[in-house]
Amino acid sequence: MPSSTPYHQPVRVGLAGVSGYAGVEILRLIIGHPGLELAALAGGSSVGATVDSLWGGLAGVSSLPVVGSMDDLGPGLDAIFLALPHGVSAPWLHAHRELLDNGLRIVDLGADFRLRDPAQYATVYGKAHVAPDLLAGAVYGLPEKHRAAIATSQLVANPGCYPTATALAAMPVVDAGLAQWVVADCVSGVSGAGRKPGIRNLYCEVQESVVGYGLGGTHRHTPEIEQTLGVPVTFAPHLVPMVRGMLATVHMGVGEGVTLDQVQALFAARYAAEPAVVLRSEPPATGDVRGTGLAHVYVTLDAQRRVCTAQCAIDNLGKGAAAQAVQNLNVMLGLPEMTGVPVLPLLP
Amino acid sequence: MPSSTPYHQPVRVGLAGVSGYAGVEILRLIIGHPGLELAALAGGSSVGATVDSLWGGLAGVSSLPVVGSMDDLGPGLDAIFLALPHGVSAPWLHAHRELLDNGLRIVDLGADFRLRDPAQYATVYGKAHVAPDLLAGAVYGLPEKHRAAIATSQLVANPGCYPTATALAAMPVVDAGLAQWVVADCVSGVSGAGRKPGIRNLYCEVQESVVGYGLGGTHRHTPEIEQTLGVPVTFAPHLVPMVRGMLATVHMGVGEGVTLDQVQALFAARYAAEPAVVLRSEPPATGDVRGTGLAHVYVTLDAQRRVCTAQCAIDNLGKGAAAQAVQNLNVMLGLPEMTGVPVLPLLP
Amino acid sequence: MPSSTPYHQPVRVGLAGVSGYAGVEILRLIIGHPGLELAALAGGSSVGATVDSLWGGLAGVSSLPVVGSMDDLGPGLDAIFLALPHGVSAPWLHAHRELLDNGLRIVDLGADFRLRDPAQYATVYGKAHVAPDLLAGAVYGLPEKHRAAIATSQLVANPGCYPTATALAAMPVVDAGLAQWVVADCVSGVSGAGRKPGIRNLYCEVQESVVGYGLGGTHRHTPEIEQTLGVPVTFAPHLVPMVRGMLATVHMGVGEGVTLDQVQALFAARYAAEPAVVLRSEPPATGDVRGTGLAHVYVTLDAQRRVCTAQCAIDNLGKGAAAQAVQNLNVMLGLPEMTGVPVLPLLP
Amino acid sequence: MPSSTPYHQPVRVGLAGVSGYAGVEILRLIIGHPGLELAALAGGSSVGATVDSLWGGLAGVSSLPVVGSMDDLGPGLDAIFLALPHGVSAPWLHAHRELLDNGLRIVDLGADFRLRDPAQYATVYGKAHVAPDLLAGAVYGLPEKHRAAIATSQLVANPGCYPTATALAAMPVVDAGLAQWVVADCVSGVSGAGRKPGIRNLYCEVQESVVGYGLGGTHRHTPEIEQTLGVPVTFAPHLVPMVRGMLATVHMGVGEGVTLDQVQALFAARYAAEPAVVLRSEPPATGDVRGTGLAHVYVTLDAQRRVCTAQCAIDNLGKGAAAQAVQNLNVMLGLPEMTGVPVLPLLP
Repeated sequence: MPSSTPYHQPVRVGLAGVSGYAGVEILRLIIGHPGLELAALAGGSSVGATVDSLWGGLAGVSSLPVVGSMDDLGPGLDAIFLALPHGVSAPWLHAHRELLDNGLRIVDLGADFRLRDPAQYATVYGKAHVAPDLLAGAVYGLPEKHRAAIATSQLVANPGCYPTATALAAMPVVDAGLAQWVVADCVSGVSGAGRKPGIRNLYCEVQESVVGYGLGGTHRHTPEIEQTLGVPVTFAPHLVPMVRGMLATVHMGVGEGVTLDQVQALFAARYAAEPAVVLRSEPPATGDVRGTGLAHVYVTLDAQRRVCTAQCAIDNLGKGAAAQAVQNLNVMLGLPEMTGVPVLPLLP
Repeated sequence: MPSSTPYHQPVRVGLAGVSGYAGVEILRLIIGHPGLELAALAGGSSVGATVDSLWGGLAGVSSLPVVGSMDDLGPGLDAIFLALPHGVSAPWLHAHRELLDNGLRIVDLGADFRLRDPAQYATVYGKAHVAPDLLAGAVYGLPEKHRAAIATSQLVANPGCYPTATALAAMPVVDAGLAQWVVADCVSGVSGAGRKPGIRNLYCEVQESVVGYGLGGTHRHTPEIEQTLGVPVTFAPHLVPMVRGMLATVHMGVGEGVTLDQVQALFAARYAAEPAVVLRSEPPATGDVRGTGLAHVYVTLDAQRRVCTAQCAIDNLGKGAAAQAVQNLNVMLGLPEMTGVPVLPLLP
Repeated sequence: MPSSTPYHQPVRVGLAGVSGYAGVEILRLIIGHPGLELAALAGGSSVGATVDSLWGGLAGVSSLPVVGSMDDLGPGLDAIFLALPHGVSAPWLHAHRELLDNGLRIVDLGADFRLRDPAQYATVYGKAHVAPDLLAGAVYGLPEKHRAAIATSQLVANPGCYPTATALAAMPVVDAGLAQWVVADCVSGVSGAGRKPGIRNLYCEVQESVVGYGLGGTHRHTPEIEQTLGVPVTFAPHLVPMVRGMLATVHMGVGEGVTLDQVQALFAARYAAEPAVVLRSEPPATGDVRGTGLAHVYVTLDAQRRVCTAQCAIDNLGKGAAAQAVQNLNVMLGLPEMTGVPVLPLLP
Repeated sequence: MPSSTPYHQPVRVGLAGVSGYAGVEILRLIIGHPGLELAALAGGSSVGATVDSLWGGLAGVSSLPVVGSMDDLGPGLDAIFLALPHGVSAPWLHAHRELLDNGLRIVDLGADFRLRDPAQYATVYGKAHVAPDLLAGAVYGLPEKHRAAIATSQLVANPGCYPTATALAAMPVVDAGLAQWVVADCVSGVSGAGRKPGIRNLYCEVQESVVGYGLGGTHRHTPEIEQTLGVPVTFAPHLVPMVRGMLATVHMGVGEGVTLDQVQALFAARYAAEPAVVLRSEPPATGDVRGTGLAHVYVTLDAQRRVCTAQCAIDNLGKGAAAQAVQNLNVMLGLPEMTGVPVLPLLP
């Protein structure tokens, strides 16, 4: 019963994966979180380094040492954020089940525990899941859909950035049964591709260029999106020349007689009490949420062509990764949900 | 009979609107065109200036004077490119009908002569067309669809950038009658918004931000796209932080049994002989066509969800404006169609 | 005696100029400051608007109304930040001297009170100063140089961004009397040019281009820099394609025998206790201080050519404007100096 | 006697290094050059590939095969451009001296033959030069300084981008003996760092950040610059977030009595007949020369502080690499010097 598990005041958290972009964003949020204490950092390739040697921007701010591996994170932690490449979390957690037995909370930013169906996992990721029983106990961490389950879970699979933005744009109409078909055309800043060098991520390849990828239903986020929405979704991701930011533009075919008032009312009802969702009366810019954990959502309707178009703008490293992870941990710990989640964007 | 009208060797061309981005791109192409001679430049706000005072990048290259207005372009021209704000071309041409009588060719980059139906023009642009008879004689300048008519026309309406990219991506499937619904989700570099200062075009507003606009069927390019394709189209444009480049991602619902081979064959057949269209086997990046008059086209199919997705990448100032204008003039003059149309991109 | 003036707990602050980039950054910092309460906003061109109508990124976060003018900021304020165009602060304060009499603290981000010598002000800004007596009482707000005077002042002139970065890079060597000549070659993001539309600030003009301006000693920051350093400085500013960030690279001719150890020791001694200055052992990137109030400083020496090169990286809207303004107010109020000053950068 | 060596009409050229940014720019220029015929391409890592598989932007334009190594470039060539990593050209040419015996012209874009003094080469590059006799016969390919020698040479060392921009900005004043000290503060787009993946070249590291490197006289271009100018130069390079473009801002201490007219006259006299240099009356933007082989030069004087400041803007891949290589080959071949060298920039 996780809810009765006592935890330290403040909560002692570990972070595995501080050398990546999502990891360092979590680090920023932990340091600014009044209820969390950063107890340990792990980063595979940086044994013994301090965090300011990995990130010049932390010089003078933090010189926490990075331990060699997750196994060295040490005892006494209340929670761990896992910001690791896909496929690493499940085997490690499988080998350290005692952590869960001892009440530790885990928020995994990777994909290992997102797909509920082990068979689908095997299809999408090309290998059997190593810990289907852990998968069965994990909760998909989209608070706007699974808040209650998150609150009593010890293992939360933080959603992908595209699935987060797409689900928040589409849910009110899809859940009302109004969507006859769904197209999610999305753009992302390139920080989502990580800090691993490759030709496609070089400045000179990205700048002044937009490119699609994973078209035709082949991207791994397609089943994750469909799992949340429960309907077929045509998902088309694109990289655009910016660092942070994601915009999902979701088009949904609707029946005759559906009105703009009707869909706006669905959005208003669905998100009125959601602390991380802001309803906008005009299309949101991704710059509006830069550095925050907020999702800006907008909906309109083309009655003539019978298509409802909804948009969701997030920071792919914020609500799309690190800030949502903190939001999830807050829910797990019973803290006020937006504690330490930035809501003020960096403007401009 | 324009085709029998004699013209000078080389063809003497005028350009109205050199102070804008499309205008200066036409200037670049005219100078590099072996069959054209730049005879006169007009720019409303720059009487007496030389072109290098408007564009520092032309220093040492050209110091052509800019005459005060289009009326001063002078006699002896064989052709004129009009790169003007919407609503300026039609009244001017209406007042100078003798130019057409004398055999002059006009390529208008604005929207005044694009919509074939004067009633629709009035609805979309909020006023009656001043010269419906000229409109009746104009040809929509998408060579891949109206080449023969362009060849015998004196007045060509150069297509909008979004309509060009969308039409080239969608035509093979739509014309084959396979598309049950069409969604065109497009992104554009901000040079399409012109050189007129405004808060939305400021560097600090555009950089690191993506935003949609004209959603819900309200953008003026929607009827232009539907006029070309002949079916309803949900068109969603977005601005992304880059100067040049446009990508149309067109999703089309198709019936059961449609195959990838089938749609690829449609594209191959349609574009095999098109000099400005390059079929790609992977999604094109807008950087691949930077500075060129080419369109890179790609198609795939999600058989499970029965959606065909096609993409077209163009330079919005190239195939989306100036280079297509030159391509059109070449067709009108009987010159080899790609004369002076750049095909080598600036890499990177 | 300002130091004995009582003030509310928390301190009630007003902000004039929220529609600009520096203004909205101050707004962000005030909201995040535990000791300040935002009591009133003024913005000349936006009577009756709410702040989220000016900035979409504040939707759902703040809907504070913007009063019509500074005169409407209202009574009961303890402090005011003035983020206004140059030339506006002095006449207004001249007309509202009673505010100072009543103990109000003013931090002026404009240039009106920066130059100590009214004659020099007249030369540089082309008109006589309207309130030379107020100027005589103002303090130049570079805490690293004038901390004690700031602490007892009611009117602080917040330094320009270039003068801040240049002074912090040059001070240790110049103050030690080692610099035979000084060249400050600086680059800035374009947010420093403000939110006022103009061709030079358009995205398409800035992107992929660097340009110098104000060369040959003509930039207005030159006398401000020389006032702080007390020696002639060749100052060369440049705009680079980024939003935030400033790097001053200062070259100083030194005599024979000056060593790297010697200059590094000067920097270490000078900045050891400075809370807003971080000494780096390698050249800092402006991205390292994005969104913060920190200055990253680096020094090296070319003994063969007898030139010491020092660099200072700041966020031009942070330590170069808003964060330094907050730092100054903290000093004026006797609060811990870095209260509410961000030190964690947005990475990446 | 190279000048009497016959060559084919058109001249058959080979290119080694087409997989890099400078290489593909040379490819673009060769294709557009009316007097050159591209006969063979070599690229170490791409045996058997076609050039459009390396560069998507060449799809539909060129599918020339890439041979495995330079040794396979084949016989019958009149000239070769070497666009290779530093240290590769000299050993290869040392092993293929017969090429020079047979009259082949070589333009080497690398650093192997730039420093005239083998001892200095050894110091700067950390190893002895493998072919000091070839080095003795090589000519430094800055046409504005060594045109006559280039014309009779078979082996030209194409200058580095920083040395080109710095030399063109400084030469008139330095050669007149007026410079008491010289500081060259330079910024470059990141295409100069090549297409090899590394963390420092990733989009997310470069975007919104400026950083200096090689300060304190440690950059390898310092001796190259000093070799050309003949005086000590403090050289400070910086990377800025753009792809192409370089700006050298050169400050030179001058004696009392030197006037602006005097230095402007020096520049006018020096560059009046230079086809690749454009004198500007205001500071040039790097965007003004995007894609061209031109250098825009500007000079001003601060009489009060006795400092002359000159600037040179080039495209680092144009006049800073590929276009200068073509200019050099034209001189070597006796062709009109600017044949095939672009002078019209891509605007915007």
